[in-house]
Amino acid sequence: MGDINKEYYNLKFNKLNKYYINKAIEQSSNSDRGSFGAIIVKDNKIISKCNNKVTSLNVPITHAVIVAIRNACEKIGNYSLEGCTLYTSREPCSMCLSAIYWSRINIVYYANAREDASLIDFDDKEIYEELFKKKDDRKIKMHHLYNNTIIDTFVMWKNKIH
Amino acid sequence: MGDINKEYYNLKFNKLNKYYINKAIEQSSNSDRGSFGAIIVKDNKIISKCNNKVTSLNVPITHAVIVAIRNACEKIGNYSLEGCTLYTSREPCSMCLSAIYWSRINIVYYANAREDASLIDFDDKEIYEELFKKKDDRKIKMHHLYNNTIIDTFVMWKNKIH
Repeated sequence: MGDINKEYYNLKFNKLNKYYINKAIEQSSNSDRGSFGAIIVKDNKIISKCNNKVTSLNVPITHAVIVAIRNACEKIGNYSLEGCTLYTSREPCSMCLSAIYWSRINIVYYANAREDASLIDFDDKEIYEELFKKKDDRKIKMHHLYNNTIIDTFVMWKNKIH
Repeated sequence: MGDINKEYYNLKFNKLNKYYINKAIEQSSNSDRGSFGAIIVKDNKIISKCNNKVTSLNVPITHAVIVAIRNACEKIGNYSLEGCTLYTSREPCSMCLSAIYWSRINIVYYANAREDASLIDFDDKEIYEELFKKKDDRKIKMHHLYNNTIIDTFVMWKNKIH
């Protein structure tokens, strides 16, 4: 790509990104807890736009990214969002980032970094830290109740689909 | 607690846990993708029971634990599940574990360990590993588009609630 073409491409690319990140920010202004918004773009079209629904639905896991992914999948009727880009007003928490991997979204753009959100006393640092700990060192106690039945269920399911 | 009382308590406790984990396993038999089930117990009552809905809803993030938390919160009309116990047929993935923290569930019991699920080619090891990596080393590229507007939105929201 020549220098002029490259410059033109970058300008266009930056303008588009700015447009989409502003759309995510617009969504965040409607949020009822914290200020979080997200949009999902596929083939240069916004297929999903959402804000945080934690207090309106009384569900602590309806973060903007989670709701946006769910809506996008329902809209396109596919559980894979491969080829999609996510714009979010805030860097994803560990739940949302894992959800992004499960959904196969390819690229993420975010406005505020995780550290900025400490401004509004929203901090997910602790959850990231808990995930990195060994099981027995975590605050939430997790007990392994081994049971053969579930192994059987796994095998039955495997035999059914293969 | 005397030895006999302690023994009685442990027996009763184990019996209850076995009962509840079997209920989670029962749910997993109904699952449409993988074999995953979860129940949430509050004050010795099951307030939510779910299986995995990934393929029936076409949404890759509707794991059994996620659906169980959402249903439980909607049922009790509260975004905190403090005092609740989760029984799940399989050790939670990083998304579900983060969701457990957000919901404030206190204790988790699981039947199959994460390693067992490799039997059915369901492996979330990669996502845990990705979360532990530095941002620039992750497979999904994440770009920080700094924008003052969003900071303003945060501050506006903070001023509104304080």
